[in-house]
Amino acid sequence: MKRVHNFSAGPATLPVEVLQKVQKELPDYRGKGASIIEMSHRSPEYTEINDQAAERLLKILGADSDQWEVLFLQGGASAQFMMTPHNFLTATRTADYIDTGAWSAKAIKEAKLFGNVHVPYSSKEQQYNRVPDNSELSFSDEPVYVHFTSNNTIFGTQFSSEPETGGIPLVCDASSDFLSRPVDLDKYGLIYAGAQKNVGPAGVTVVLIRKDFVGKQHSEAIPTILNYKTHIQKLFNTPPVFAVYMVNYVLEWILEKGGLSYFSSFNEKKADLLYDELDKDDFYRGTVEKESRSKMNVTFRLHTEDLEAAFLKEAAQNDLVNLKGHRSVGGVRASIYNACSMESVEALVGFMQEFRKKNN
Amino acid sequence: MKRVHNFSAGPATLPVEVLQKVQKELPDYRGKGASIIEMSHRSPEYTEINDQAAERLLKILGADSDQWEVLFLQGGASAQFMMTPHNFLTATRTADYIDTGAWSAKAIKEAKLFGNVHVPYSSKEQQYNRVPDNSELSFSDEPVYVHFTSNNTIFGTQFSSEPETGGIPLVCDASSDFLSRPVDLDKYGLIYAGAQKNVGPAGVTVVLIRKDFVGKQHSEAIPTILNYKTHIQKLFNTPPVFAVYMVNYVLEWILEKGGLSYFSSFNEKKADLLYDELDKDDFYRGTVEKESRSKMNVTFRLHTEDLEAAFLKEAAQNDLVNLKGHRSVGGVRASIYNACSMESVEALVGFMQEFRKKNN
Repeated sequence: MKRVHNFSAGPATLPVEVLQKVQKELPDYRGKGASIIEMSHRSPEYTEINDQAAERLLKILGADSDQWEVLFLQGGASAQFMMTPHNFLTATRTADYIDTGAWSAKAIKEAKLFGNVHVPYSSKEQQYNRVPDNSELSFSDEPVYVHFTSNNTIFGTQFSSEPETGGIPLVCDASSDFLSRPVDLDKYGLIYAGAQKNVGPAGVTVVLIRKDFVGKQHSEAIPTILNYKTHIQKLFNTPPVFAVYMVNYVLEWILEKGGLSYFSSFNEKKADLLYDELDKDDFYRGTVEKESRSKMNVTFRLHTEDLEAAFLKEAAQNDLVNLKGHRSVGGVRASIYNACSMESVEALVGFMQEFRKKNN
Repeated sequence: MKRVHNFSAGPATLPVEVLQKVQKELPDYRGKGASIIEMSHRSPEYTEINDQAAERLLKILGADSDQWEVLFLQGGASAQFMMTPHNFLTATRTADYIDTGAWSAKAIKEAKLFGNVHVPYSSKEQQYNRVPDNSELSFSDEPVYVHFTSNNTIFGTQFSSEPETGGIPLVCDASSDFLSRPVDLDKYGLIYAGAQKNVGPAGVTVVLIRKDFVGKQHSEAIPTILNYKTHIQKLFNTPPVFAVYMVNYVLEWILEKGGLSYFSSFNEKKADLLYDELDKDDFYRGTVEKESRSKMNVTFRLHTEDLEAAFLKEAAQNDLVNLKGHRSVGGVRASIYNACSMESVEALVGFMQEFRKKNN
């Protein structure tokens, strides 16, 4: 079995132990004579998986099941961009949306269809090369929530901690750093994350919603499947069985490794290795302000686009793959989520040193 | 590897050849050193899968790519219940919804949020035990479309052919008989199907939309991800990679077997075997009118609930599993989609004969 060093921004590399477990259980799940994807979502087998995944998630986050609901929905963050304001905004309500990148901007666009949006901070004019300090945030008078994107995959920035809102519940698109480090749950009303970076394959959106935040829902009509309450009440429709099944194994793997304190430290070490290499001289140049650097997506440029193309090509020849920056910004991007190994980062750093030597 | 006779209504049994191919390619897709679920949805590998699946689907249906768009969306039929009227209905527009079961009723409920709904026929009063003849359909004056559920999984009824609408485009929830037989495409504007019965695992909704039907969309605001045009223009957001990848292999398998003419005849033979057994005497009793019987979900009762419980228990002991009727109606249901083998149906019929002998 060949395995490359995979720096894909998402869908991203998964723990090989989890892939092998899934491989083994296809097409006969635990001696049942059928694959898990051939069983009803109301079967005892799938019910166990769904419940176990929710329990593991709460355990990893240290969340109280009396306070939090866990939902496994579909449509990724892009669906949540519309679903959250559909539940909580009206023509007479306002939400604050911090604008730190392309995904924040998309969330803002959808929210405006349902209510008033105030933008307390935007780094758009600086090409989204930073996230704000708390002192830079100017909130509206009574927002229902404050929305932020905790990590910006395209630009390579990340909030080092949650924005201070003075008690207004945070709604967070945590797609690209979910479960990569502890969070201060008390500050949140809702957290959503497409699974395909840190917690599983594409096809499922993990949603954590605080019960008292659900109470802030407006009373206007919402299509049944777009109403959070529908999914809180029961398993409403056929879930993406395979994706939840894999998420459950990834959560098990996170717990076995040591949970969020382990990954926080592990991810910091990997990021430090890469940023230290960038900062040695100006051959590689980080694209964002140092204080805003992401520990998930390390973005940098070389002196010319030709040199970047040569870097990407030679890297691939060395089994260091999917390092190309997002098509909207170019350059190089190394995505180093939970399942990216230290060996992969060391191999990349080694290659960067060699490449600098040859081309400096 | 153990394989039972799996009559699950969905998620349902899949071709074992497809499961084995998927198993082999995890965790190293075709020597690339990563699983297909660890690659970007913009990668050449996934792009090939997505395009191939769309091409195969059009080929199987005999659909012209100049006329039809193929989309792989998320949220199942339950999301389409809301998405279709969101695109095509307004306060001044009407759509006709034929009510032949629980799923039709759910579709009607969502459509009413967006516009006027006229119900040209309902079998609700008869416990949904039949579908209408064309003579029983009374359409409204100018509906934008006529919606129907081609096969009713819970009750075990199926339209033997498309309702005649006099040129009004059909919108069809084909979730439970999609690709089980040929369809008269000229009559349709839109066909949607959750994949988890006949075409793959749960987590992807196959949507076929006719280009001239898209032109009937209203001009009011629609959230970006809920607008069909968004997905027609480009691959908008991260698709459910694994589910589409599997659908592509199931479509390949359908083509290899001989396409829709093969499955039409194969599914008819399987259904005939079962219905002939039901009709031998009154030990087993079909629950729906003969003319409305489904070739996908064969529903029947025994004389008492105790006898039904004994039937289900002994069947399971003989590796004939997931035969319990939907929780809302009880009884027995054998779901015999494309991937259900003749051997499985023969084994079930053999068991039914034995069970009758012992208990008559």
